[in-house]
Amino acid sequence: MNEFNWQIKNKAKNNNSRTGVISTPHGQIETPAFIFCATKATLKSINTYQAKENKTQIILSNTYHLMLQPGEDIIADHGGLHRFMNWKGPMLTDSGGFQIFSLGHGSVANEIKGNKNFKNKKSLTKINDEGAEFKSYLDGSSKLLTPEKSIQIQRKLGADLILVLDECTPYNVSKAYTAKSMDRSHSWAIRSINEFNSSNNYKPTYGSSGHQKLYGIIQGGVYEDLRDQSIEFNMSNDFFGIAIGGSLGSSKEEMYNVVKHTASKLGSKYPIHLLGIGDPIDIWTLVQYGIDTFDCVMPTRIARHGSALTKFDQKGKINIKNSVYKTDKNPLERDCKCTTCINYTKSYIHHLFKSNEILGLQLLSIHNLNFMNLMMKDIRNAIKNDTFEIYKKKWIP
Amino acid sequence: MNEFNWQIKNKAKNNNSRTGVISTPHGQIETPAFIFCATKATLKSINTYQAKENKTQIILSNTYHLMLQPGEDIIADHGGLHRFMNWKGPMLTDSGGFQIFSLGHGSVANEIKGNKNFKNKKSLTKINDEGAEFKSYLDGSSKLLTPEKSIQIQRKLGADLILVLDECTPYNVSKAYTAKSMDRSHSWAIRSINEFNSSNNYKPTYGSSGHQKLYGIIQGGVYEDLRDQSIEFNMSNDFFGIAIGGSLGSSKEEMYNVVKHTASKLGSKYPIHLLGIGDPIDIWTLVQYGIDTFDCVMPTRIARHGSALTKFDQKGKINIKNSVYKTDKNPLERDCKCTTCINYTKSYIHHLFKSNEILGLQLLSIHNLNFMNLMMKDIRNAIKNDTFEIYKKKWIP
Repeated sequence: MNEFNWQIKNKAKNNNSRTGVISTPHGQIETPAFIFCATKATLKSINTYQAKENKTQIILSNTYHLMLQPGEDIIADHGGLHRFMNWKGPMLTDSGGFQIFSLGHGSVANEIKGNKNFKNKKSLTKINDEGAEFKSYLDGSSKLLTPEKSIQIQRKLGADLILVLDECTPYNVSKAYTAKSMDRSHSWAIRSINEFNSSNNYKPTYGSSGHQKLYGIIQGGVYEDLRDQSIEFNMSNDFFGIAIGGSLGSSKEEMYNVVKHTASKLGSKYPIHLLGIGDPIDIWTLVQYGIDTFDCVMPTRIARHGSALTKFDQKGKINIKNSVYKTDKNPLERDCKCTTCINYTKSYIHHLFKSNEILGLQLLSIHNLNFMNLMMKDIRNAIKNDTFEIYKKKWIP
Repeated sequence: MNEFNWQIKNKAKNNNSRTGVISTPHGQIETPAFIFCATKATLKSINTYQAKENKTQIILSNTYHLMLQPGEDIIADHGGLHRFMNWKGPMLTDSGGFQIFSLGHGSVANEIKGNKNFKNKKSLTKINDEGAEFKSYLDGSSKLLTPEKSIQIQRKLGADLILVLDECTPYNVSKAYTAKSMDRSHSWAIRSINEFNSSNNYKPTYGSSGHQKLYGIIQGGVYEDLRDQSIEFNMSNDFFGIAIGGSLGSSKEEMYNVVKHTASKLGSKYPIHLLGIGDPIDIWTLVQYGIDTFDCVMPTRIARHGSALTKFDQKGKINIKNSVYKTDKNPLERDCKCTTCINYTKSYIHHLFKSNEILGLQLLSIHNLNFMNLMMKDIRNAIKNDTFEIYKKKWIP
């Protein structure tokens, strides 16, 4: 059995980027890495062996969705999420906080990216010091998620890497609220750690000891002094990894500043995860500040709407429904070896989307997933070889 | 390159069933075999290598759908359907007649099975001696499909086995109309043969000479004397294979009688295809009359609605959405080696359907396709070993 470990392998000379290896009982993750969202224990149009075949290292599932459907006990009864969804590699689960926040405040993506046109929807949640109360989107029943409950559920799900429960603070609140929310998240983190430590012998997972490791989450919104407090808090506790959460500001610049500041203070001790960011341009920037892992629904979500990711020196993102692809007998990318590109043409995939045939969703999802995995591999190579700029311009403008 | 050939390998002692091999430039089909419907050049939720992996021998696509979207020229430009959809095995296309009939008279399935509650919809077609006029379901434009045009399109699609254009006569018409329609189908068959013979050097297909073989279609409805005329007509022409088409009556008994009568007169000279019938119970009966190949949308269509085929000694057909499967950690079938059953539990697939996750459609489709392929293999074994009744009771009541 592999033990958990975090090791930095290479550091770039000209920026703070680094390659590393996160070892888990289910295998190793070479970083920087992209974590694909299998929200409800599925990558939607593709299955787990298709994901593996196309170089996926790690996936994540959502505590919030799975506690409601099918319920954590059914998954635990299978021996954990790995067995339930037949994913044999490393896996992460979030704590559920992010989704409760999303239901409470509207679009998560809008919020963490500080969209100013954002309109508040009627809140579905009550957040107090005890935990977060929300209504099930399935049957409207009231549920309470506490730090202890989140850890108990994540123990049953059995992912390798799990998160403390936090309040994902929105952008459009005062500094005072951000500070208060941060303090609450810190007290929830302590309760998460205590629950985690009291249950460290739980053994639900597939082909492993069932050991899990806990990530803390840095809060503090766009305020450097609050971020510093949160960094100090998190570093004074015994976390395996650290995620950067909360509001990342209202512009790319603000996001980059928050991440740069936070990651530089966290240094090399932890693998650093950035929650919910996955745009290729952002990734190429943010690895330079020391981010090791990213997650986002983007690659598979845009695939289901007909968008394929291609390298910048080809076309960048394309919409396969565009009539120019009707007769295009080339693969989505000319040099791509994904199981879509070696087997199907753009013309064929265009036909599938024009015919509303669901195979199209599968084929584009496979390609986008492989694209992200190859891009992350090139990022690792760029860091190893100290040729960041040369590699980068192949992938993004 | 393999040449076309039809060879009978074994004949059962107690009935007219036989095993055989249809050789095509794209490989051999061991018969009796099931032909899966890739109507619009896709098996919908599964890709072609998943179909191959789960023992599929042959698929069929539809001239009617493909002439409208994407158009036969785009497919020909790829080098034919094999390349367009990346299917490297044997393939059949129908002539388009069946679908025009369907649009003209309502549900095809209702009609060929003689459903008495059937209500005529407004006809979308005009059928006359020249051909069939219909409105495109995409843009409402008028289209004319003639026997010559159907063969020209099928030449461009490049399937190994192609069909003459026929009028698929409905059940609810007089004997006089059935006779008139049969005569028209015969004259269309002659025109199909002439067009076929004049274009036998067309070479569009993937890894082969592009040679194709033509099937005739037996008409005559439920009338034995008309069926006899159509058998005589078809046998006097140079067809590679024969399909049994037209109305098969209003009851299983009537269908069985039509098929038994027709197949017994056709004998061993041709591979005999029965159009549009795929129920396991029907297949076990009809192979005993000498049917070699079947096609039907059923296995993949019911999968998309949550139904899995399982052997009779397990449960028969099950609906995975049923709450009894919520906690069922067994595969769909306990001894099944399909890529769904070796990887996923009923509980997981139940969860996917309850969550409206499209991976569920893929997983059930794979299982049902593998089920049909294994059942056909057992039918072949039953014929070889003359143990029809022993094998049969494993699969159907």
